[in-house]
Amino acid sequence: MKRSLGVCYYPEHWDTSLWTEDADRMVDAGLEWVRIGEFAWSRIEPERGRLVWDWLDEAIEVLGVRDLKIVLGTPTATPPRWMLDHYPDMVAVDANGAPRKFGSRRHYCFSHQAYRQEAARISRLMAERYGPNPHIQAWQIDNEYGCHDTILSYSDAARIAFQNWLEQRYRTVEVLNKAWGNVFWSMEYSEFGQIDLPNQTVTEPNPSHVLAFRRFSSDQVVAFNKTQVKAIRPHSNAPLIHNYMGRITEFDHYTVGQDLDIASWDSYPIGFLSDRLEESDEHKTQFLRQGDPDFQAFHHDLYRAVGKGRWWVMEQQPGPVNWAPFNPAPLRGMVRLWSWEAFAHGAEAVCYFRWRQAPFAQEQMHSGLLRPDSVEAQGLVEAKQVTAELADDDGLSDCAIKPAKVALLFDYASQWAWDTQPQGADFDYFRLVFEAYRALRSLGLSIDILPPSASLEGYGLVLAPGLLTFDNVHLESCSGSVVLGPRSGVKTEELTIPAMLGPDIEGLDCKVILTQSLPPSVSLDLSCGGKAHRWQETLDGKAETVVTSGEGEAVMVGNGKCFYLSVWPDLVGWQNLLSPLCKAEGVEVKRLPDGVRIRDTQQHRFVFNYNAETVEWDGIRLPPAGVHWTKTA
Amino acid sequence: MKRSLGVCYYPEHWDTSLWTEDADRMVDAGLEWVRIGEFAWSRIEPERGRLVWDWLDEAIEVLGVRDLKIVLGTPTATPPRWMLDHYPDMVAVDANGAPRKFGSRRHYCFSHQAYRQEAARISRLMAERYGPNPHIQAWQIDNEYGCHDTILSYSDAARIAFQNWLEQRYRTVEVLNKAWGNVFWSMEYSEFGQIDLPNQTVTEPNPSHVLAFRRFSSDQVVAFNKTQVKAIRPHSNAPLIHNYMGRITEFDHYTVGQDLDIASWDSYPIGFLSDRLEESDEHKTQFLRQGDPDFQAFHHDLYRAVGKGRWWVMEQQPGPVNWAPFNPAPLRGMVRLWSWEAFAHGAEAVCYFRWRQAPFAQEQMHSGLLRPDSVEAQGLVEAKQVTAELADDDGLSDCAIKPAKVALLFDYASQWAWDTQPQGADFDYFRLVFEAYRALRSLGLSIDILPPSASLEGYGLVLAPGLLTFDNVHLESCSGSVVLGPRSGVKTEELTIPAMLGPDIEGLDCKVILTQSLPPSVSLDLSCGGKAHRWQETLDGKAETVVTSGEGEAVMVGNGKCFYLSVWPDLVGWQNLLSPLCKAEGVEVKRLPDGVRIRDTQQHRFVFNYNAETVEWDGIRLPPAGVHWTKTA
Amino acid sequence: MKRSLGVCYYPEHWDTSLWTEDADRMVDAGLEWVRIGEFAWSRIEPERGRLVWDWLDEAIEVLGVRDLKIVLGTPTATPPRWMLDHYPDMVAVDANGAPRKFGSRRHYCFSHQAYRQEAARISRLMAERYGPNPHIQAWQIDNEYGCHDTILSYSDAARIAFQNWLEQRYRTVEVLNKAWGNVFWSMEYSEFGQIDLPNQTVTEPNPSHVLAFRRFSSDQVVAFNKTQVKAIRPHSNAPLIHNYMGRITEFDHYTVGQDLDIASWDSYPIGFLSDRLEESDEHKTQFLRQGDPDFQAFHHDLYRAVGKGRWWVMEQQPGPVNWAPFNPAPLRGMVRLWSWEAFAHGAEAVCYFRWRQAPFAQEQMHSGLLRPDSVEAQGLVEAKQVTAELADDDGLSDCAIKPAKVALLFDYASQWAWDTQPQGADFDYFRLVFEAYRALRSLGLSIDILPPSASLEGYGLVLAPGLLTFDNVHLESCSGSVVLGPRSGVKTEELTIPAMLGPDIEGLDCKVILTQSLPPSVSLDLSCGGKAHRWQETLDGKAETVVTSGEGEAVMVGNGKCFYLSVWPDLVGWQNLLSPLCKAEGVEVKRLPDGVRIRDTQQHRFVFNYNAETVEWDGIRLPPAGVHWTKTA
Repeated sequence: MKRSLGVCYYPEHWDTSLWTEDADRMVDAGLEWVRIGEFAWSRIEPERGRLVWDWLDEAIEVLGVRDLKIVLGTPTATPPRWMLDHYPDMVAVDANGAPRKFGSRRHYCFSHQAYRQEAARISRLMAERYGPNPHIQAWQIDNEYGCHDTILSYSDAARIAFQNWLEQRYRTVEVLNKAWGNVFWSMEYSEFGQIDLPNQTVTEPNPSHVLAFRRFSSDQVVAFNKTQVKAIRPHSNAPLIHNYMGRITEFDHYTVGQDLDIASWDSYPIGFLSDRLEESDEHKTQFLRQGDPDFQAFHHDLYRAVGKGRWWVMEQQPGPVNWAPFNPAPLRGMVRLWSWEAFAHGAEAVCYFRWRQAPFAQEQMHSGLLRPDSVEAQGLVEAKQVTAELADDDGLSDCAIKPAKVALLFDYASQWAWDTQPQGADFDYFRLVFEAYRALRSLGLSIDILPPSASLEGYGLVLAPGLLTFDNVHLESCSGSVVLGPRSGVKTEELTIPAMLGPDIEGLDCKVILTQSLPPSVSLDLSCGGKAHRWQETLDGKAETVVTSGEGEAVMVGNGKCFYLSVWPDLVGWQNLLSPLCKAEGVEVKRLPDGVRIRDTQQHRFVFNYNAETVEWDGIRLPPAGVHWTKTA
Repeated sequence: MKRSLGVCYYPEHWDTSLWTEDADRMVDAGLEWVRIGEFAWSRIEPERGRLVWDWLDEAIEVLGVRDLKIVLGTPTATPPRWMLDHYPDMVAVDANGAPRKFGSRRHYCFSHQAYRQEAARISRLMAERYGPNPHIQAWQIDNEYGCHDTILSYSDAARIAFQNWLEQRYRTVEVLNKAWGNVFWSMEYSEFGQIDLPNQTVTEPNPSHVLAFRRFSSDQVVAFNKTQVKAIRPHSNAPLIHNYMGRITEFDHYTVGQDLDIASWDSYPIGFLSDRLEESDEHKTQFLRQGDPDFQAFHHDLYRAVGKGRWWVMEQQPGPVNWAPFNPAPLRGMVRLWSWEAFAHGAEAVCYFRWRQAPFAQEQMHSGLLRPDSVEAQGLVEAKQVTAELADDDGLSDCAIKPAKVALLFDYASQWAWDTQPQGADFDYFRLVFEAYRALRSLGLSIDILPPSASLEGYGLVLAPGLLTFDNVHLESCSGSVVLGPRSGVKTEELTIPAMLGPDIEGLDCKVILTQSLPPSVSLDLSCGGKAHRWQETLDGKAETVVTSGEGEAVMVGNGKCFYLSVWPDLVGWQNLLSPLCKAEGVEVKRLPDGVRIRDTQQHRFVFNYNAETVEWDGIRLPPAGVHWTKTA
Repeated sequence: MKRSLGVCYYPEHWDTSLWTEDADRMVDAGLEWVRIGEFAWSRIEPERGRLVWDWLDEAIEVLGVRDLKIVLGTPTATPPRWMLDHYPDMVAVDANGAPRKFGSRRHYCFSHQAYRQEAARISRLMAERYGPNPHIQAWQIDNEYGCHDTILSYSDAARIAFQNWLEQRYRTVEVLNKAWGNVFWSMEYSEFGQIDLPNQTVTEPNPSHVLAFRRFSSDQVVAFNKTQVKAIRPHSNAPLIHNYMGRITEFDHYTVGQDLDIASWDSYPIGFLSDRLEESDEHKTQFLRQGDPDFQAFHHDLYRAVGKGRWWVMEQQPGPVNWAPFNPAPLRGMVRLWSWEAFAHGAEAVCYFRWRQAPFAQEQMHSGLLRPDSVEAQGLVEAKQVTAELADDDGLSDCAIKPAKVALLFDYASQWAWDTQPQGADFDYFRLVFEAYRALRSLGLSIDILPPSASLEGYGLVLAPGLLTFDNVHLESCSGSVVLGPRSGVKTEELTIPAMLGPDIEGLDCKVILTQSLPPSVSLDLSCGGKAHRWQETLDGKAETVVTSGEGEAVMVGNGKCFYLSVWPDLVGWQNLLSPLCKAEGVEVKRLPDGVRIRDTQQHRFVFNYNAETVEWDGIRLPPAGVHWTKTA
């Protein structure tokens, strides 16, 4: 598979007179893909049942005749205003009980059956018309599921669907009462119809109740997506894609991904740095114009798993955006660096968002490859550099990656569980896993992120911090070292405590007998160097102590190659815990300078400099935003 | 009366096969009391009118035959789900107008008449059945009134009840208009039915309106409680108890206490430290695993007054809890220390919450004396140490206290008044009184906390900071020194300013003629040493100046033994103001090391070390969490 | 016109027996004006249609016979409780959809047609009765439009009025769709009746939609005010006044001002310092008891423009207030200083709020010229000093000002635009303009604040930071230097980006081609000295670079006397940018000591010391709160 670049385009925003020039310039720039259509429902169907295809036919033709390959989006993230005349109750309801209004996007409740049918209808109509069209080389279903906090809805539609879902899962209300421990506080139900959504209770609702609602809410996304998949498949052989977002964890992406052919995500490094990371102000200032050195890489690796190996960046930040608290411009060179980082993780395509900056509406301050006055912006300069580099070859256009030696399990249900029951105010599952990822990457490692049920064969090291249960984990498939914990396997699937406590790991005699969350003012020294914070489990059992706290308590115990870690380490702690394990497994470790990162592909080793200063390392001189590659195969 | 220990137990949570073993282990540990039943309504009455007593009969029998004394709780804090089918409007409504949903606890509005009758019905049914049972040695009514912000409800039931309450209080709407000053901003009413609850106004409502609503809301709790008292009394001679909470000030505990026989409270030192105190991060780190050195003592003294001398700790923290922002484990020895601190303040019983950690539902991360797998936890180790010490005697099992020489008035209506009209953003009545208490205790004093209407006979020093009015205060009964103020007696009962300004104190010529609140950046030096902050009143009158500010203004004036203080002192300021007064009255003062506290009982002087380090003081070596006692009588 | 003092008085709050004494004391103090009536609706009309005039007749007579001139207020800011019985839907609805309740003030929706008629009715009735009364020398309409966030209402009345307003503005929905760019995200409408208010959308609504709603909301205030103007004019020749507030920007004061004769505002320097300024804690501590040195001056100059030259302070803080987070007393002398600062800016009258501190209701902790017990407070001492100084003359009673050489444009629509689309979390239009004002004033300048459409003739320097568009700006009328930007002229009236980018300035070849917002951790050095922060525009064009950043980018470009500034300077940056321009225009610049300010009138130069310490400057010794004047003409 070859690496390629593309762009997101909105022909409906521009006078038709601009279309041919735009298409020509895309081709000139070396772009191969154009995504269109995903917000255009009001133009395709201005009133219910009146379909207007001509403009879209023409736009596809203009692009297609120039050999631009089209990703056609279904427009279901933006139902037009007339839809609400038919289904006033189709909107999502927030946790305070307020129905969300028309006037932006994603204003639908995933549980609303009639809207789900409307979404299937418009998808089927588009597929019937454009499925046979050779220019349509991929489909995008909907847009950014979960953006703007839109997964959890507290509508009547959701409540009724939840009750049905519960009945399917538990069969009888007695089973549910028992599974949730509803005897506590007299919360027992006598029929499913009595079970409300878990918002607006006096104090926290039963965590098992909340976790069930989180599972249900994820399943609603899966079902909504599947409805469109079924509408399109009969009419098109082109691959189906969804564009996920960064750090959206409210639905199980792996399960949605099962129904699609390619995963993609929308990568906004600078926006994410300021908006979605719990890092220090110092860190955010250091990487202000470059984005976090690990956040994109993490998602690249995650969505490679979601896409079962096939994945894209569907939207790549090309300049300042409009939606973060502060919106500086990328450091010169970063658009190129971000593109290459994606390719180094196996991306088949990187599409920039968007072609020309819109002069109106919500995203008018979001830059494009062109300025609103059609002049080339910096993003286009750098995109052209990438297309030139791809063309230069020496194998650079080959997207094949090299199997990683290290794997990290990421599990959506664990996120929901610890969201529901953080126990410490700053405990967050994503953060825990991401900090482990950052430590691995700072050691120069290339990493696979895996769903918990994946085979672990061939890995030298596997990490599973914060995993709710080991019920579906194939530890037996791993011949390398495994580090489980902290907070792994200590609960049941229903978010209760196992009768004999957890974790229950074959061959590792170790139980968590006491759990503490710690305020930011407190930390533990680790005997391996570094510190631990936030979380501390007291262990019991005969497993050998490998690392202790300054006060002599076991913080990592093991038995041969299987280890349980009972604390949340800081960066140095993770590095010092993991380095010896890597070495023991013959996995090469290099402590990289701050902001320098490595990624190995089948043919190359890439080195990235996320710093705004030049760095000399390992004989390489990396300018700010520098990308360096060496042919390795 | 002898000191004893007990435990909270939920037989309905466990297989009956565990009951006898549990009961035997309680007896072995030396526990004498077992509280049961207070959340079990859904098991006692699974559907309305179908009463299921057998399991409870059996549980009582299993415990009772082993001579365990039972506190039986009425389950009215957790009405079952079917109750809402009958009375959908029984739920409390929050200040934003949102009705609270089923799914946790305390989801009832105190003003809902039908629910009040349901609560009386179940209490009567339990009393009829178990009143004659000799194992039932006490009753607990409901559970933790006011927990989870449940006193103030903005429901229709509350609105109508409020209008009736107003009519009873003021008789005519003209009297009300006059009392509240409703001529201001044209807020005059022409009938009681026009008067709404004081939420969701454009800017602040009339403070007299708010204070009336606060008084009404407190009265609703009193009435609700009284209904159950009346239901139980005819059928049982056992004492009636309620378990109050820490720093809940939304209802008048003294008035509720009038209808009961014993006060009790639920003491969670580590949770309270992080969640309910405005102390510095440094202080919270210092006492992270020990709890604040004065917070429990304050409540012990307060609830002794609420219980008219008889009081318990109904729930004592035994290990980490689940509900604070961060939940570390207690320092080894603290469970013992907390138990002895309670006994030293006159507690008749200390009951640990709970016997075995529940593996399910909201409190599954709340530790018990046993782990979920029934293994003994640290709390039980320390409880056994206490029972051994009690048995050892030398008078240690005698709960009689020694009359204190110092009294501090605490008044719920003053809390409501200053909540309503803080005037400075950080003015809080509880905090003001608590800081005075901390200063007294840091001077080695044992203190009585009193309702404002108490007799002051026999005290060498009486403090009344922040008291709304002196209307019912018996200053004339005090032969010692009295320190009034700051912000005492400067308003009327209706939260208006007295015509001739306040305070109006017999024999003390002093008026507050100007009031200022000060931001945290500003403080005043005191001529006695220490500083004042937050609040400053300018005084006029002929009373003698005793202490001045650095700028020469009077901050404490007096006439013989009666003083008015016009500022809010810091710790050193309070110590320096009060020490000379104590000495003048022959009250012994000892400046204690940080974290060391003293409490005198009839037979002993107890010394407690709340520090995590060993302290040498007065010839005593106190290890971390150390408790030391000397026989004094 | 002569300068005079006055006071706000509430005869309805006091026993009639106090009225004559109060009036006599006012006269003795030298006060000339008394404002009454503005909250007295429930006394004038206790039930609908029953008018009770006698008490008001008498109050006017008592005051009038002593030659006190009366400002009579219409009481429409406080509709009585019975009004809600007639129009339950008259209340404003907040952005969360919650209707606001009765019980404070300003509880009406400006769009409610029936309430608007009620307001006109009571105004007409008052005008009919008192228009002929010679003691009524001015009218105040309503009270503090916009106080307590009352301009934006999300009621049904507002929604329907908004739809009508849109239809009037855009004629067809197609025009609206095009103007707003509703093709984006399929937000197109097919009829005006589909357009909702822009609250509670999933993510941000279309900025053009929001800006239209902001314009509409302002227009509703104008229309509401106009209704009362029309009701009063036929019956009275006395001038009509409204008392605006500090930093209320939700409606266009210039347009309201067009219908009135005099502007006035309510000046609370200490409350505003802590509550309405984004200054550092250090600054707020420095000026804690004096108020900000520029905030009042800014509003004096602004409301002079709103009043087309005629303006008052209708309410002047006389001591501590009740409504700020912290409420200290003014430094001795500040009440006098504030009064003189107002006069120096051209105020015809300064009225203190209020005569006697009310002992009841919401403002009982708000001081007056008298204490609640009728004793003279510090405010009255200082008011008397001012009346004595005015009487002393030497021209001091003449309110004529001197034309300023420097003008600053202030535009309400620009505030709404950048509120809607801040792009950087701390971008605020008022703050940007106010910081420019502070810099000018710190240079010893007297300033005119002007609406954007004003003639710029005669000014040596004109500033227009943050101006939405130049559409109505008369740049051609200016013969001095003009500094435009940052963020000026870069959008259209509909808050979209101009096709060829902006600004489009005659004779200045300069376009903004990239926009960045910067977090607080980042700043730029300016080649003129000082720094820039928060905002950075990249410029393109042939205009000459005047000032650069440390990295060499143009931050101010110019062509002769017209300059565009592309960054947000700090205080030193502003001073260094502007000083040379002033000098070039022959405008005298003096860098004043911190907290010292100058203001020139026709006959005098006033120097004010806002510091709590004595300052020696320019041969003048200014004590704390000192006011110094020199006869200059």
